[in-house]
Amino acid sequence: MDVERPRILITNDDGIHAEGIIALEEAVRELGEVYVVAPVSEQSGAAHSLTLGRPLRIRQVDERHWTVDGTPTDCVTLALNRILPPEERPHICVSGINHGANLGDDATYSGTVAGALEATILGVPGLAFSLVANRDQNFTESIKVARSVTQKALAEGIPEGTLLNVNIPKGLPKGIRITKQGFKTARPVISEHIDPRGKLYYWIGEERVGFRAEGGTDFEAIDEGYVSVTPMRSDLTDHGAIEELGGWNSDSF
Amino acid sequence: MDVERPRILITNDDGIHAEGIIALEEAVRELGEVYVVAPVSEQSGAAHSLTLGRPLRIRQVDERHWTVDGTPTDCVTLALNRILPPEERPHICVSGINHGANLGDDATYSGTVAGALEATILGVPGLAFSLVANRDQNFTESIKVARSVTQKALAEGIPEGTLLNVNIPKGLPKGIRITKQGFKTARPVISEHIDPRGKLYYWIGEERVGFRAEGGTDFEAIDEGYVSVTPMRSDLTDHGAIEELGGWNSDSF
Repeated sequence: MDVERPRILITNDDGIHAEGIIALEEAVRELGEVYVVAPVSEQSGAAHSLTLGRPLRIRQVDERHWTVDGTPTDCVTLALNRILPPEERPHICVSGINHGANLGDDATYSGTVAGALEATILGVPGLAFSLVANRDQNFTESIKVARSVTQKALAEGIPEGTLLNVNIPKGLPKGIRITKQGFKTARPVISEHIDPRGKLYYWIGEERVGFRAEGGTDFEAIDEGYVSVTPMRSDLTDHGAIEELGGWNSDSF
Repeated sequence: MDVERPRILITNDDGIHAEGIIALEEAVRELGEVYVVAPVSEQSGAAHSLTLGRPLRIRQVDERHWTVDGTPTDCVTLALNRILPPEERPHICVSGINHGANLGDDATYSGTVAGALEATILGVPGLAFSLVANRDQNFTESIKVARSVTQKALAEGIPEGTLLNVNIPKGLPKGIRITKQGFKTARPVISEHIDPRGKLYYWIGEERVGFRAEGGTDFEAIDEGYVSVTPMRSDLTDHGAIEELGGWNSDSF
């Protein structure tokens, strides 16, 4: 990309005060002009949800930081259509660094991935970064990875309409693997509790272990200590099934 | 499927009192035993979001109806892992009938599609139904379509791991087209308002017009008056881009 100081939009799903987004800003600050538009509160599991049923508030924190009381998708939509003037359209959008993995079909629940997806839908290349660690989260290596991947994406470009879902292993990465999305086999864990008034409530837990063993997946790359980079797009079509279902086509009803 | 009375789980994103879910129950009631687990309030635009940050309440309305104060994904997860006993596992999950289209990449924002997607991830075939009409919604023909497609899916099965995203045109459908997901070209419309205290707020509007002209898409089928049936799966991988990015693979960092 032939721009001296590219404009970089930053968002996340853990909220503007999360350690991961501070790490991401540190990672990309030297690469260009940064603009941070992030949820005011944690939005984990927000997926690609867009707030349509209520109004949204934008708060400008300083010259480069804004909060939105909504989802990552809301943040990116408002950033690109309202907060940033058209002449300051970003060259890239980076989302994260998520506190935890976004591997396999968990990507479809991820607010981090959705932030990058929304940017891609609106014509700005998107990168999503996640650190595969549920505890002892140390972002030192992740900062290096996020900087290097963003720099590469800015310099070489990425395929149009594609976002990169980047998962970073704990510790020193062995290298990079371009992967496909795997499929998890784990089931959600639902716990049951009793509130102070004696009424039942439920809490959905995340279950991150267990995936279908398959070569070339994001799970495999992480398992082997590599950074996993999965190209994704806003297309859920099961292309293989189109032919299989061909007999359903009909000209009467 | 060789079951005399298949069990059918029903959910939606417009909430348990919406006209569309009442229509869907009417459509499939004669095909088997129905169980309705739906959001207590409207969840349009919920996408595949899963509520992880707060507890959830389940309320049993009667022998066959439950509400959850969460998203369609929460409803399906709780239905399959908590509400229905394992021996009453449903044979199929139907979601809808959505009041409005879920065409093109709008499917990635859709709570209706997400309900069916979640079922598919948890091993139960899913069907999502949407009526392509923003006003004058008449579910008479949609009921016939939903009944016929569900019956066919129960009788013939659908590919494993696949859900069907069914969009139904207004009026009398000409037939069925198996389609791929299209891509919209519309931009969101964000309106700006002033609240009673003089403070600004924003509201994201839905913009449903405008799509990339491409043969074989869901948009095309609906445009021509057909029911669009798009097979989908929980995979966002851009398979075409994997080769294109091959040069990124590396064994050092």
